[in-house]
Amino acid sequence: MESSSSLLPNRVAVLGPGLLGGSILLAARARLPGVALAVWSHDPAERAEVQRRALADGVHAELSAAVRDADLVILCTPVGVMAKLAGELAPHLAAGAVVTDVGSVKTPVVRALTPLFLDAATGHSRFVGGHPMAGRELAGLGAARDDLFAHAVCLLTPEADTAPVAVARVGAFWQALGVARVETLAAAEHDETVALVSHLPHLLAAALLETVAGARTDALARSGPGLRDVTRPAAGASELWTEILSLNRTAVTSALRAFSAQLARLRPCLEPGGEPALADFLRDAAARRRELPAPTK
Amino acid sequence: MESSSSLLPNRVAVLGPGLLGGSILLAARARLPGVALAVWSHDPAERAEVQRRALADGVHAELSAAVRDADLVILCTPVGVMAKLAGELAPHLAAGAVVTDVGSVKTPVVRALTPLFLDAATGHSRFVGGHPMAGRELAGLGAARDDLFAHAVCLLTPEADTAPVAVARVGAFWQALGVARVETLAAAEHDETVALVSHLPHLLAAALLETVAGARTDALARSGPGLRDVTRPAAGASELWTEILSLNRTAVTSALRAFSAQLARLRPCLEPGGEPALADFLRDAAARRRELPAPTK
Repeated sequence: MESSSSLLPNRVAVLGPGLLGGSILLAARARLPGVALAVWSHDPAERAEVQRRALADGVHAELSAAVRDADLVILCTPVGVMAKLAGELAPHLAAGAVVTDVGSVKTPVVRALTPLFLDAATGHSRFVGGHPMAGRELAGLGAARDDLFAHAVCLLTPEADTAPVAVARVGAFWQALGVARVETLAAAEHDETVALVSHLPHLLAAALLETVAGARTDALARSGPGLRDVTRPAAGASELWTEILSLNRTAVTSALRAFSAQLARLRPCLEPGGEPALADFLRDAAARRRELPAPTK
Repeated sequence: MESSSSLLPNRVAVLGPGLLGGSILLAARARLPGVALAVWSHDPAERAEVQRRALADGVHAELSAAVRDADLVILCTPVGVMAKLAGELAPHLAAGAVVTDVGSVKTPVVRALTPLFLDAATGHSRFVGGHPMAGRELAGLGAARDDLFAHAVCLLTPEADTAPVAVARVGAFWQALGVARVETLAAAEHDETVALVSHLPHLLAAALLETVAGARTDALARSGPGLRDVTRPAAGASELWTEILSLNRTAVTSALRAFSAQLARLRPCLEPGGEPALADFLRDAAARRRELPAPTK
């Protein structure tokens, strides 16, 4: 059994320094000062910002240059381009290097990327699907924070043929970045989980805003902090979210169906005489909310 | 036309120093230092806390003693007890004193209280329904903040027979406490508005938590900040909310129906080929969210 510090990387490549990639850079700088950081971005302005803020030791427009020396490569791009990028970087990867990602949907990513990093000798893949359960409604490097992952649970979704040492190394890296907990689960289970706790809330937030605007446009400007909190996810980038929701459509549709069943349970509670049932429903929900992980701050 | 400063009260009585009543006391202390503050509470522990923290000049267990010298009386109790309290305090009110409240539902409050404060000479009532669109998921005096109303819109719901000067005085008071804006609208319009921007979100938050717990209990502990934000209203006191939602059942039921219609619009967007429609839906919602008032901080 390797010790946790020997599991830590020496040279990390972050591909796509947006909100998550940028936060990884910031957290790694703060908590893993000895680790060399390389960045790849297709966007000259993003590369310039990484350089200007000295967020990495090397900033590259060439994928091969960014990953060549890395022992841990982290894909932080939109999920839709990961398979293409992975195919391009695979030939340039150092022996023993581990690859992971931070995408919000795991089944399609894991299915496409696991075979790309198969080690012929061992039959094991060096790719580990990952997803830190953290984020903000703001996107881009400018919104990155060194404490974005504090209190977050990081979910890893290894397959049967994923190298155990790769899982251990990705887990150790996230622990070192300060997450509250690393858990492994099957990609399908991950996708069901995020359909419920992230994708469904996103749809509800959007549907709520459309409901208010459709019923009384003036109500939006008169709303209080409640509507603001509840609709925060809907401020996210619509292109990214269209991709995420579509890639996870089966689990999302089933979560939406389960939600409609709960609304159907609620309706009679609002009729005269339904107060005790309504109070039970609300009390139950309040108790459930106390089971949620603590906020970042 | 009286100037705004002559509209301001000299002696305010706050009945029920919980989250809202306590925040009024704190904001008044900070922004209206010359104004005398009296408090009534039925709860000895609450009275002791007001005394200990010196939040008011007088703390009373007797309603008559609290309101006798006041020129502005603010009911900050649960909506269900307001009519009873108002009936008890009316005989003790000074001539010309104005009465208002902060309840989340206005039609039943305004209907019950307006006639209790009718001035026989003028035919005008000195009661003005009010509702600052501010709050927290925490209840009680301990959660009160002097900046709770900063950036909030305060809604007033005068009736045809409400004294215009009473409306002006209540509005001037809220302006002085630092709200972003005071608006008047009909009680029924207010109740439709809060059904959409506050009561519906509360139900959705509760239904979302029940959905997640029902589908995968383990998902709650794995959730990120999104679920926490979206479900914040569901942490509210279930008894208070049962009362509020039941008192506003007509508007809430109709808001719920409108929401279900939006979900029905969303469902085909999740099917293969629905991406452009989904992107439109999400883009629209993101634009709506930008119309919301700025956060308190």
